[in-house]
Amino acid sequence: MPRRARRPLHVNLFEMNCVSHITHGLWVLPGNTRERFNELEFWTEEAKLLEDAAFDAVFLADVIGAYDGFRGGPETSLREGMQIPNNDPLSVVPAMAAVTRNLGFAVVHSTSYEPPFAFARRMSTLDHLTRGRVGWNAVTSYLPNAARNFGHGDEIEHDLRYEIADEFVDVVLKLWEGSWDDDAVLADRERGIYTDPAKVRRIDHKGAHFEVEGPHLSQPSRQRSPVLFQAGGSAQGRQLAARNAEAVFFGAPTLEAARQQILDTRARASLLGRDPWSLAFFPLAFVITGRTDEAVARRVAEYDRLYSVDGYLAHRSHGLDWTRYPREERLGAIIERRDPGYQNLVGGWGYRPEQTVGDVLDALKAGSWGPFQVAGTPSVVVDEIERWVEETGIAGFNLVQHHTPGTAEEFAELIVPELRRRGLFREGYEDGETLRSRLWGPGRDRLADDHPGARYRDPAQLAVPRDPFTLPDEAAVAAEAARLAREDAARG
Amino acid sequence: MPRRARRPLHVNLFEMNCVSHITHGLWVLPGNTRERFNELEFWTEEAKLLEDAAFDAVFLADVIGAYDGFRGGPETSLREGMQIPNNDPLSVVPAMAAVTRNLGFAVVHSTSYEPPFAFARRMSTLDHLTRGRVGWNAVTSYLPNAARNFGHGDEIEHDLRYEIADEFVDVVLKLWEGSWDDDAVLADRERGIYTDPAKVRRIDHKGAHFEVEGPHLSQPSRQRSPVLFQAGGSAQGRQLAARNAEAVFFGAPTLEAARQQILDTRARASLLGRDPWSLAFFPLAFVITGRTDEAVARRVAEYDRLYSVDGYLAHRSHGLDWTRYPREERLGAIIERRDPGYQNLVGGWGYRPEQTVGDVLDALKAGSWGPFQVAGTPSVVVDEIERWVEETGIAGFNLVQHHTPGTAEEFAELIVPELRRRGLFREGYEDGETLRSRLWGPGRDRLADDHPGARYRDPAQLAVPRDPFTLPDEAAVAAEAARLAREDAARG
Repeated sequence: MPRRARRPLHVNLFEMNCVSHITHGLWVLPGNTRERFNELEFWTEEAKLLEDAAFDAVFLADVIGAYDGFRGGPETSLREGMQIPNNDPLSVVPAMAAVTRNLGFAVVHSTSYEPPFAFARRMSTLDHLTRGRVGWNAVTSYLPNAARNFGHGDEIEHDLRYEIADEFVDVVLKLWEGSWDDDAVLADRERGIYTDPAKVRRIDHKGAHFEVEGPHLSQPSRQRSPVLFQAGGSAQGRQLAARNAEAVFFGAPTLEAARQQILDTRARASLLGRDPWSLAFFPLAFVITGRTDEAVARRVAEYDRLYSVDGYLAHRSHGLDWTRYPREERLGAIIERRDPGYQNLVGGWGYRPEQTVGDVLDALKAGSWGPFQVAGTPSVVVDEIERWVEETGIAGFNLVQHHTPGTAEEFAELIVPELRRRGLFREGYEDGETLRSRLWGPGRDRLADDHPGARYRDPAQLAVPRDPFTLPDEAAVAAEAARLAREDAARG
Repeated sequence: MPRRARRPLHVNLFEMNCVSHITHGLWVLPGNTRERFNELEFWTEEAKLLEDAAFDAVFLADVIGAYDGFRGGPETSLREGMQIPNNDPLSVVPAMAAVTRNLGFAVVHSTSYEPPFAFARRMSTLDHLTRGRVGWNAVTSYLPNAARNFGHGDEIEHDLRYEIADEFVDVVLKLWEGSWDDDAVLADRERGIYTDPAKVRRIDHKGAHFEVEGPHLSQPSRQRSPVLFQAGGSAQGRQLAARNAEAVFFGAPTLEAARQQILDTRARASLLGRDPWSLAFFPLAFVITGRTDEAVARRVAEYDRLYSVDGYLAHRSHGLDWTRYPREERLGAIIERRDPGYQNLVGGWGYRPEQTVGDVLDALKAGSWGPFQVAGTPSVVVDEIERWVEETGIAGFNLVQHHTPGTAEEFAELIVPELRRRGLFREGYEDGETLRSRLWGPGRDRLADDHPGARYRDPAQLAVPRDPFTLPDEAAVAAEAARLAREDAARG
């Protein structure tokens, strides 16, 4: 079993700039402040709470369309506050940064519909303003409505989305890593020279999907590239992670599947010449806790009473309308016919062609959101966290909120002390560290030398096209994954 | 003479997320903090200073490329810190909002290269976070390098840029004004209903340049549409303003030209059925002051010694390289040949075909940036401000910084008291007012009923295409401008 777990653990609060992110139906809980998500103080108060508890980061999800497949429209999503209305995630970071010194901010931004040049500057700006506390979760957009909000009649086909994503990442890496030398800015008041022009250059990117001249508009920020997260479980998603990510956010149907997915992604990175053990993995974690078993049971019962089945169905329908089908319809048939939204059945969400619509509905109604779910007193919760760390080698997790700010408050008050007692969580921050150095150690403010973006530190590399985005032979990946598992066991 | 001047005056600090915005060469002044523009505290300190002085807003300019025409490359711009490096303007707003309650934020965002859907959400997010304190200066992008940063081999042709801009504004107005009813959000905890889906709708925009389905992702913010500024002096620019703007930021070569430009734009608005007197005009203002004539003279001499001619030449070259031409070359010839960057000679910057390159260079070297320039003790400065208000009917101005934070500090300390003594500037804010209600009066949180965006409050109007963007007959504009001038004189 992978024992390359990191200690201390890294814990992010999983967030979204909306009312109902994942735990649908629970926004109505007494004291739940989710409907204040439009207010600046909602975010600054949360940031201070998380920093007081030494969370690594707030991890902000995003979608740029409505989930409008279920029952043929967005009505259910609207009624449930299910990711609509939602606001821009990047815009709350500067407000949270203004009231904190160490908290990190990982934000989703899609590679599918907006041009990379402006996004690169936006992230550099955030990295400057936060002095190196930002990460970027690079995703592709899977909602058909999102495609239509950006002038694409149909959703971009799944595999093509990943090709575009890979080129998007390549473009922004060139801008972040290759366009300005570290010593380009002189700020020489005597001679009136701000920048040495010889140390700034265009990137002249010309690819299949983007043409970007440069130079990058922002001078180098503390981390240059934000910490690169990737999310997406399909083979293409794992390959994208292996090529570009430093950290992977993921869900998986079982702990064993999580373990395999982690090894698979590490193996892909290894085949590309990267240190497979440097990748950090963060699953979703659902934690319900309390001081006594009775308190936990009451909490679980209260949540069970309030969960909105409609909210879950609308969410997990993606672009699909489950209500169109008989229970016995096979997912494989939907895929073969290319029914609206079929792409999300092949897109890494863990669906299998042999499953039926009934299987899916039953699982959704049970609120199944991946296996990392635990309800118990602090020692029970931390036992489960330890089991995950030991058996999968995760670096930490994204804590799902049932209640805002209750979930984070309880985690800070009850779970963090137990984690610390077992040496699993640090006492505080190293003041002045970047998000990257917190995750990979002192001095690691920048991308590792074996990261593909690092090559752009050599200006000559800007003109050398990157290898095309292709999937490796699955057998080679499996063999490498097995080798890594043995290597790990030998060290364990 | 137009006497529809507003009292109190409205004063914005003109800013840009960079070292050298307009007063090139002066960043080296002792105590000038411009090189801290990457730091969050630069912005929060400035915001607090401006709010203490009751400024209306900070007005943030932007470019999304380098000025690389002069001497055939971006070298001069880089050396001078001349708008490169620069950072994203929208990203500093939430940080400034976190430390203020009343200061407004007007931000430039170009309509030329980024999709309107994501921008609409970004502005709604800022309007939510600031509780209605944001404005948007809608511009088109004129830098050839900007075009190439977004995959356009050549700059988009001037007139087409304005057609695109007009449709971009139309799309975002539909999203802001028409997609959600005011009472769509119920936040009904009893029934578990966040939004009434019957009160949210798609916009289904299908135009020549954009296709956007919607619905808008953000629920209605306090102002819905940000205060709509427009900048651009060509006939197309003035027409775009007349069709869409509530406020116009502009420069003009003389006071008389400013007066005419204001009347021309009011006339165009009038011909479109809008109240011509409702538009608010903000020229650039260059103010140098001190307690004594000697102090002012010392300051002027210091600035004159430091102004960077190269900085000005690189800036005002736009995409043109003046060094390629003999002094006697006529601008008309450059336009006829369509030399690289010629479009900026016809794009409303005040160039005339009969001018020569030598004329332009002499004017640039003299630091000519429009006529609203005054150096003097407070009474001299305020006399000039009064003259502008009386003779042109401006609503206020964007104060150019020679020194940061010195210019704003001195304005607050020396000019504001003199303005107040003469009844030209308010004592403070009405707490809780929006930027729009500060500019147009209590209760005016939303677009005026005669603004073209207001029609989208009727959902049926979303399906009715807007009149195409065409220029009216110039004689009709001139006649209407003359009528407005007479109407104003009669009331004066």
